[in-house]
Amino acid sequence: MDTLDILWDLALIILFAKFFALVARKLNAPQVAGEIVAGILIGPTLLNLVQETDFLNQMAEVGVILLMFSAGLETDLNQLKKSGIKATLIACSGVLTPLVLGTLMYMCFFGFSAVGTEGFIKAVFIGTILTATSVSITVQVLKELGKISTELGMTIMSAAIIDDVIGILVLTAVIGMRDPKSNFALTAGKTGAFFLITVIAGVIVYNVMERIDERYPHTRRIPIISIGIAFILSYVADYYFGVADITGAFFAGVILSSLKDSDYIEWRVDINSYTFFGPVFFTSIGLQTNLRTLDTAILLFSVVFVIVGLLSKVIGCGFMGRILGYKGKDALKIGVGMMTRGEVALIVTQRGLKAGIIGSEYFTAVILLIVVSSLLTPLLLKALFSGEETGIA
Amino acid sequence: MDTLDILWDLALIILFAKFFALVARKLNAPQVAGEIVAGILIGPTLLNLVQETDFLNQMAEVGVILLMFSAGLETDLNQLKKSGIKATLIACSGVLTPLVLGTLMYMCFFGFSAVGTEGFIKAVFIGTILTATSVSITVQVLKELGKISTELGMTIMSAAIIDDVIGILVLTAVIGMRDPKSNFALTAGKTGAFFLITVIAGVIVYNVMERIDERYPHTRRIPIISIGIAFILSYVADYYFGVADITGAFFAGVILSSLKDSDYIEWRVDINSYTFFGPVFFTSIGLQTNLRTLDTAILLFSVVFVIVGLLSKVIGCGFMGRILGYKGKDALKIGVGMMTRGEVALIVTQRGLKAGIIGSEYFTAVILLIVVSSLLTPLLLKALFSGEETGIA
Repeated sequence: MDTLDILWDLALIILFAKFFALVARKLNAPQVAGEIVAGILIGPTLLNLVQETDFLNQMAEVGVILLMFSAGLETDLNQLKKSGIKATLIACSGVLTPLVLGTLMYMCFFGFSAVGTEGFIKAVFIGTILTATSVSITVQVLKELGKISTELGMTIMSAAIIDDVIGILVLTAVIGMRDPKSNFALTAGKTGAFFLITVIAGVIVYNVMERIDERYPHTRRIPIISIGIAFILSYVADYYFGVADITGAFFAGVILSSLKDSDYIEWRVDINSYTFFGPVFFTSIGLQTNLRTLDTAILLFSVVFVIVGLLSKVIGCGFMGRILGYKGKDALKIGVGMMTRGEVALIVTQRGLKAGIIGSEYFTAVILLIVVSSLLTPLLLKALFSGEETGIA
Repeated sequence: MDTLDILWDLALIILFAKFFALVARKLNAPQVAGEIVAGILIGPTLLNLVQETDFLNQMAEVGVILLMFSAGLETDLNQLKKSGIKATLIACSGVLTPLVLGTLMYMCFFGFSAVGTEGFIKAVFIGTILTATSVSITVQVLKELGKISTELGMTIMSAAIIDDVIGILVLTAVIGMRDPKSNFALTAGKTGAFFLITVIAGVIVYNVMERIDERYPHTRRIPIISIGIAFILSYVADYYFGVADITGAFFAGVILSSLKDSDYIEWRVDINSYTFFGPVFFTSIGLQTNLRTLDTAILLFSVVFVIVGLLSKVIGCGFMGRILGYKGKDALKIGVGMMTRGEVALIVTQRGLKAGIIGSEYFTAVILLIVVSSLLTPLLLKALFSGEETGIA
């Protein structure tokens, strides 16, 4: 009765996930946090109603790919070009600082390891988890404050997007380092080859899709072909180039992000995401997080992880903002705006788990960072913008 | 690299399925047929690019449940009440005739078996496959001819819907007969208890959902809770009452079909269906159908199966129409309108396969019936309505 159990598992997951997502929203916390809590509740930590299965893991896998594809689709290439150099510098500094500080923090806890050893890669990976800002939460807060179309708002948004791209590149490099058969030159070469091919294939695919889209706008075939492309690029990235499959999915989204129907595709992808694949992914993180095994060492690590995660972004981005000529308060706004973490941090963590680099105990730290940053950013931004004229009536 | 293969399989399935569905539509054949052909092409019969896997089978299972839920949602209870007795009688005759003729045909081919034996159940199952008319194709043809809102059109449509309900009841009974531990009284009792509980739970669930829907119309929670209900009812039907899970899904749809947001739910379900779960289900039928093992016996059986399938509906429904006072030509229109088969016939076949009642070689016959009936019905209906004033400009 295997197939029957699937129906039961899925029903519990989507109902509990939705319920706790709504509760989270009421509490001004990100919905994602609610879905993870749902997983902890119905998982082995508490009720033990649902256990990890191959099917759920595989659904979660598809969910991750869809989420990253959707994130790629949201990229606005034209806006990136406009905000250009400033945003790129802020993003670079905002990736580098948490990467270095995260790595150092891990080493302070668990000892320093030589470059290239397993301990070193693990430390760098902890830093890597800290790199990606959550675009969606930042955007939402800026929208609410009516600051999204100001020069400052645009810079923050662009930096948050570029930040994702750089974060993915860092992840690619770290995952590549892990492969015992490869050396740095080979990894770099394969990664370079992947991006070269992605650019060439991207131009071709984009032009073909643009024609299809012009001939058959708003038809089902547009999102279906797009999802097919995302899956193929994910597969090719991982299978032939040793690049993380989520990198492939993300760049498939970037390639198609300038299509006229990119919103239409994203919406279709999101409907698939939010009904089954997304909730299964986030709930499965809760299922994998057995809080009963939590000890004080992990708790202490998590708290420090959150503090380093928040401060490193504020410092990295704020400092670069100051160098680029923003006033003190504006530089601080940039730093705080870039501080939120979200899905991508979880996805990166899960990739590390899958590749055997880190253990599932780090989920606790990452979940804590997402929840705290998502709650703190809106409050701090509102305080920083207070006194100024906002778009709120 | 199991999870990677999933991406590759899914990409091939959704791209090939969509392509062949579009080709089928160009040829005026049902899109479903195109998706099955895609499965035959990429499956073991020809290219062998994709093989059956647990994951694909489980996705297909979810797809079947979603399809049946969607079919239930389309049921218009008010219209059923209006068309009432006439449509019900036509539907009954239209179910009984193919059921009996199908059973007899199987026995003519493979020998007569005593009531209750395995051979007998198999024969009755072949009859059962023939019972369900495809509402969607009939509706489409009547719409095209501008005859959907005529008294005749309404009668055909209602009969096609009631036909589904009765077909599901027949399937439930046959599947129940199969259980070696049960006797007829027990099966009937359990099935009766299921329907009693479904009605009681249905009234409660409907009233709760109506309130939620009034408070939060057009929100994501409506389709998500609805799908949760469908999965739970499917599970409960099968696990506790030995009733086919698709019966549970169908009746979950019927329960929610009168909600104001039922179209909204159906649309969301369909988007999930058409992107992944539906194509995976129909393609997997193609994957399971290895045409290389076809022999002349199966081919001959298939041809007779198609002829009996078509004629039994025309006779059963047309004859009852004549008794109810329709003129000869109108009675024939009813018979021809009820002749199309679709997804439900496939789903029933797959259930028989899963329950070990029949082998996968019968897919060939069912696919043939779907394709022939879907091509023939529009042509014949157009011919029968020719000369009359149609709604076509």
